[in-house]
Amino acid sequence: MMGRIICAGLGPGDPELLSVKSDRLIRQARHVAYFRKAGRAGQARRIVEGMLRPDAVEYPMDYPVTTEIRFDHPDYNRMLAEFYGLWADRLAELAQTEEVVVLCEGDPLFYGSFMHLHSRLQGRSEVEIVPGIPGMAGCWNAAGLPITWGDDVLSVLAGTLPEEDLARHAAAADAVVVMKTGRNLPKVRRALAAAGRLEEAWLVERGTMPGQRVARLAEVEGADCPYFAIVLVPGRGRRPELAE
Amino acid sequence: MMGRIICAGLGPGDPELLSVKSDRLIRQARHVAYFRKAGRAGQARRIVEGMLRPDAVEYPMDYPVTTEIRFDHPDYNRMLAEFYGLWADRLAELAQTEEVVVLCEGDPLFYGSFMHLHSRLQGRSEVEIVPGIPGMAGCWNAAGLPITWGDDVLSVLAGTLPEEDLARHAAAADAVVVMKTGRNLPKVRRALAAAGRLEEAWLVERGTMPGQRVARLAEVEGADCPYFAIVLVPGRGRRPELAE
Repeated sequence: MMGRIICAGLGPGDPELLSVKSDRLIRQARHVAYFRKAGRAGQARRIVEGMLRPDAVEYPMDYPVTTEIRFDHPDYNRMLAEFYGLWADRLAELAQTEEVVVLCEGDPLFYGSFMHLHSRLQGRSEVEIVPGIPGMAGCWNAAGLPITWGDDVLSVLAGTLPEEDLARHAAAADAVVVMKTGRNLPKVRRALAAAGRLEEAWLVERGTMPGQRVARLAEVEGADCPYFAIVLVPGRGRRPELAE
Repeated sequence: MMGRIICAGLGPGDPELLSVKSDRLIRQARHVAYFRKAGRAGQARRIVEGMLRPDAVEYPMDYPVTTEIRFDHPDYNRMLAEFYGLWADRLAELAQTEEVVVLCEGDPLFYGSFMHLHSRLQGRSEVEIVPGIPGMAGCWNAAGLPITWGDDVLSVLAGTLPEEDLARHAAAADAVVVMKTGRNLPKVRRALAAAGRLEEAWLVERGTMPGQRVARLAEVEGADCPYFAIVLVPGRGRRPELAE
């Protein structure tokens, strides 16, 4: 008997926004693994609350580090590489005989932690990936903001980029999404202002989830927001005229 | 009694990739509208085959024009504006008393035709939009290609853009998605070659659907492919080393 690993995309947060396929696989699963920040319940686990079988075995994969060390510190790379290597070994071992579902927020192959396991599992286990609605799509729908029209260029940026890079890419695109905002919020705000896009920008926190907040970025006070908050600048491409 | 309009995102094509919410709303719907090219069954309608109630009333919205006239021709704009105006009126009328579900491939607010109805329905009908997995996410998952890592910049481009614009944006980004490929395929290939990205590019046709095809773009013969084929250039951002 051969097992396998299934990575189930969870979408932006609302459990009703899981795909029919992820929903079914998660409800049937005997083995369920998920990433989380040590000491937290974890967003992925929270989304599937009430969906797991009573006899499901859970494998919380606690990140050894998140934002305590800067990502360019040598320890950061070493600790994460060991962590992903360890869990790839454990899951590959389990998948010799069992089917294991790995939960992944948003879409697994779009800035997803699962990608670091996926690359280490090549040739060792059968892996199936079920796509999910990316967090950014949940956010622009939650805000009721059409993000791209016609031939708009969309650039997706990480708030961790240098300010000049953020400003340059934001100025070159029609529509902009900034992921991983968090403590980078003041820098993102300055970069969008430099690109002349601040007045059109929205900040969406906890999109599609309880406590959702949608605000004009220019009107947001403070220097911080949740790490997974997303900034959106909608495009304004060609479209048939509204007037008839 | 007040009705409303619900736009249900359908995702990339596989019916199992609808969200739990879209799936439920579509199965319950008494009134179902969808865009299609005149004379065709329509991709949206095909995805929900077998899901509709036997007594569902269908409203196919036949585009008056798709690629017969160039999009920069004045008739193109006029004909589409009339078409969207007409259907906004019809749906708003129906939604005074009934609940109407409008089907939308991919994600409704990401290059979706529904956006042209949405802007015309403001203040006239209650509108709810249910996000979907964008076609591009279906494609990169179908191809098993992680698209963005770490702080990769992703640019989403339309194949209808001028060649120089495609090349410039492709060169400036880490990961690239080109939508609306179709007869623009030779231009897209030249632009990616000019940007030095052709060797890393993949073409995905009918992603997640029967007849799916994944090929290296450099090896694809011919000057045409389905309009909804998508070109992917995966990012190569920072990641913890594979070696331990």
